[in-house]
Amino acid sequence: MCKDIGGTIMNYTKSVEKWGVFEFCSEGTTAGNPFLERSITALFESDSERKTVNGFYDGNGIYKVRFMPSFEEEYHFTVCGNFSDSKYEGTFSVTPPSENNHGCVKVHNKYHFQYSDGTPYYPVGTTCYVWNLQSDDLIAQTLETLKNSPFNKIRFCIFPKSYCYNSREPRSYPYEGTPVDGSAITEDNVWGYTPDSKGNNWDFERFNPKHFQHIEYCITELQKLGIEADIILFHPYDRWGFSTMTPEQNELYLKYTAARFSAFRNVWWAFANEYDLIKNKSIEDWERYAQIIVESDPYDHLRSIHNGNQFYDHTKSWITHCSIQRSPEGTSEWRKSYGKPIVIDEMLYEGNIQYAWGNISPQELVRRFWEALCRGGYGGHGETYIDDKAVWWSHGGELKGDSPERIAFMRKILEEAPNGGLRPKNMEWDELCVVPEDENLADETGYHLFYNGISRPGFRYYHIDDNNIYTVDIIDTWNMTVENVGSFKGRFRIDLPTREYLAVRIKKAEDGIE
Amino acid sequence: MCKDIGGTIMNYTKSVEKWGVFEFCSEGTTAGNPFLERSITALFESDSERKTVNGFYDGNGIYKVRFMPSFEEEYHFTVCGNFSDSKYEGTFSVTPPSENNHGCVKVHNKYHFQYSDGTPYYPVGTTCYVWNLQSDDLIAQTLETLKNSPFNKIRFCIFPKSYCYNSREPRSYPYEGTPVDGSAITEDNVWGYTPDSKGNNWDFERFNPKHFQHIEYCITELQKLGIEADIILFHPYDRWGFSTMTPEQNELYLKYTAARFSAFRNVWWAFANEYDLIKNKSIEDWERYAQIIVESDPYDHLRSIHNGNQFYDHTKSWITHCSIQRSPEGTSEWRKSYGKPIVIDEMLYEGNIQYAWGNISPQELVRRFWEALCRGGYGGHGETYIDDKAVWWSHGGELKGDSPERIAFMRKILEEAPNGGLRPKNMEWDELCVVPEDENLADETGYHLFYNGISRPGFRYYHIDDNNIYTVDIIDTWNMTVENVGSFKGRFRIDLPTREYLAVRIKKAEDGIE
Repeated sequence: MCKDIGGTIMNYTKSVEKWGVFEFCSEGTTAGNPFLERSITALFESDSERKTVNGFYDGNGIYKVRFMPSFEEEYHFTVCGNFSDSKYEGTFSVTPPSENNHGCVKVHNKYHFQYSDGTPYYPVGTTCYVWNLQSDDLIAQTLETLKNSPFNKIRFCIFPKSYCYNSREPRSYPYEGTPVDGSAITEDNVWGYTPDSKGNNWDFERFNPKHFQHIEYCITELQKLGIEADIILFHPYDRWGFSTMTPEQNELYLKYTAARFSAFRNVWWAFANEYDLIKNKSIEDWERYAQIIVESDPYDHLRSIHNGNQFYDHTKSWITHCSIQRSPEGTSEWRKSYGKPIVIDEMLYEGNIQYAWGNISPQELVRRFWEALCRGGYGGHGETYIDDKAVWWSHGGELKGDSPERIAFMRKILEEAPNGGLRPKNMEWDELCVVPEDENLADETGYHLFYNGISRPGFRYYHIDDNNIYTVDIIDTWNMTVENVGSFKGRFRIDLPTREYLAVRIKKAEDGIE
Repeated sequence: MCKDIGGTIMNYTKSVEKWGVFEFCSEGTTAGNPFLERSITALFESDSERKTVNGFYDGNGIYKVRFMPSFEEEYHFTVCGNFSDSKYEGTFSVTPPSENNHGCVKVHNKYHFQYSDGTPYYPVGTTCYVWNLQSDDLIAQTLETLKNSPFNKIRFCIFPKSYCYNSREPRSYPYEGTPVDGSAITEDNVWGYTPDSKGNNWDFERFNPKHFQHIEYCITELQKLGIEADIILFHPYDRWGFSTMTPEQNELYLKYTAARFSAFRNVWWAFANEYDLIKNKSIEDWERYAQIIVESDPYDHLRSIHNGNQFYDHTKSWITHCSIQRSPEGTSEWRKSYGKPIVIDEMLYEGNIQYAWGNISPQELVRRFWEALCRGGYGGHGETYIDDKAVWWSHGGELKGDSPERIAFMRKILEEAPNGGLRPKNMEWDELCVVPEDENLADETGYHLFYNGISRPGFRYYHIDDNNIYTVDIIDTWNMTVENVGSFKGRFRIDLPTREYLAVRIKKAEDGIE
């Protein structure tokens, strides 16, 4: 129970786990436009932290403030704002995190990630742009699929999507109002149906709380599965006018979204899908929007902005990691240019739709994952097999492809590597090789992971050093086998089968015994 | 018989076919250094042409002048020079070319080639750098292989090659003298064994005529098979000092080579393999060497210069076509930049050696051939399967790979296209498509060749125009099948199997009947 300094009493939970969501909830005024005219703010204090947090109007006269505590301590909070004449305060205690709660993912060791509790996090992402805006059945199926998949991050949108294979209406809209008549929309005219948003009738100053509540459900379900929610704030594939709102409307939207979502530990901010295809937003706009999120998110969740053709300037300080659309061959260069983790969220998708971005083979997608990994970055998955019901890349549903199993295998290999991620080693000639980013672990383990890609060398010489004994595994990244071929010292030759997609893993033999 | 204006009589052939080799041969002085101090020149005249041609010293007191006539006319010639005190003149008649003699290959329609007689020539090249410097048996085997191959051009060197898999001595050397002791050469030290050419003892002013006579034999044997000899004048892979001769020595070499080889109709001049890796030659040097060949070759054979990392400036007027080492994705851009035929002689080789340039799959090499073709250029083949006896790319011998059969299939498809080569058509989205370079043939035939590469679209829409009926073939470039799927009008959909490496050929239906 919460003490109303004035008189009213509201319920809230007396304890919450570390990195969980504490929620304060109160009735308040419904006069005027609460989204625009009302404020609710709370100050949270414990021995180790002190944070002022914005709340939001959740409809039906209900106001909420959410908070994610970072310490197992007693917290005191004070709520104020013009949402009510009452003032509230209260206390709650923070219990240890539950088993699979490791906190937020943060940048670690410059090019990699780890959770708040120090557990390594290696992003293995997929994209289902509007899985969250599908039917309950399809959403349940997507969650079941994700549960059995290798993916620990998913990119998706707050706004609905209008695009090829995306002609249907979403389950809900983010604003009060009515959409343009979509009854004449077909695959042939789904693009640019109402580029001027004519026919839509939205009140961009009144959010639809149900839309956001539902997305919060999705975020929470992902959290249960240990999956990061890489939330796309803006995208160009639109017929409702959500991509062409005014700067003031965008700012209101960002503040509302940050107030609602920030307390979920698995949230990442993806400012855009293909920012450069959203024609009415300038770099200055993006920079201002970034600043709003920086100021409105008290937990400093990861932030990125994803390109169509032209990279954003990823050196900007608000960008925590590079979210890239491109083939991963540039990864080692991008590391140098930007000095940040490289996540190539779009590398073309496994599938068979009519467009080249969505019809590569599973072999090629898996190759791109390994190419990214063995250049010191992280690839991303997507699947676009023609299906009237659901195409994974947009709607979720079931996975049909042959890459996820191999991506799971790659993830296992990566998790077996020394902690803290891998960095590209400069090689003579043309070999791809990564070693531990952490110099001490690199020295200690002698870990080297070579990747041959489409090269099919019948043999290769390796020479790590003259003194230590190294054990060597041939990894078939497609057939998912690991074969130990023995221990070696000095310069040694490894014979290889004439096959594509092989990797060679070398590490110091235990006890240095041959 | 030739009339010696002074008194001596020498034999020569009284008739020669058009674009054949007429050879005048005479004894002359052996005093001093005939290579350096003696000259032999002849003026050839017919009704339609008049050419002054340099001859050369062929050893053993024999001097020769060779001439390739371009007209079926009576020719008169006059020989002079300080090779002899005698002066010679004579006549011969030129007969029609034999069946497979189409003359020299020349640039046609800006981006393509044809023979002197107007027959189209579509280059389908391979590389066997020093096949010509192997044993008689191996040479015979290479010729037999070539006879049954799709290749109509082969790149090879005059100088021997010292490189990985090229540690053995050649059958002969181009100069009088003795090579460095090669007995200690192994695969481990074959590179840069004697970068300063220490241990070699050559007289760079005295050629070894046997070496050149043998190469002439090879050129002639290729000619019989209808194969162009793309002769590499300089290359960096050397332990004998042939890549580090002085400018004066290089000039002597180029003049001698031009005098000997120019009269063979199937000769092309490849100034270098990887010019930019030959460190002691500047751009000014290359330009001067090019000028020497331009002046010394009376027939204006095709001329190119092939890169390692950095392209030469292919806009130079002496360069007739671009000889390129790179993956062919840039072909359409190179066409625009250079306005010349694009021949990508090195696109990585099918094989399994330890280096990435020599171990791609046949699928990938065939893909590159189609990629080059469907961007308006021409790919080149090479094969590097590990073999102690002979690796095709250097020694010739037998082909082991799976690409040549598919390259033959591609050549057939190309030869079935309207004459004069294909140009890339600007497509919306990401499709690769070529149409006939000749606008009239493009209009008349409606020929379009689409290539999907690694894309696997389940269907695609095509729309050539609204009025004509088009017949459509699905071509599986790997499985070498052509399936006609019917005739269509306007915008039509073609369903495609979810497989890589498919092409779609569209052309106007005969009589426009559906």
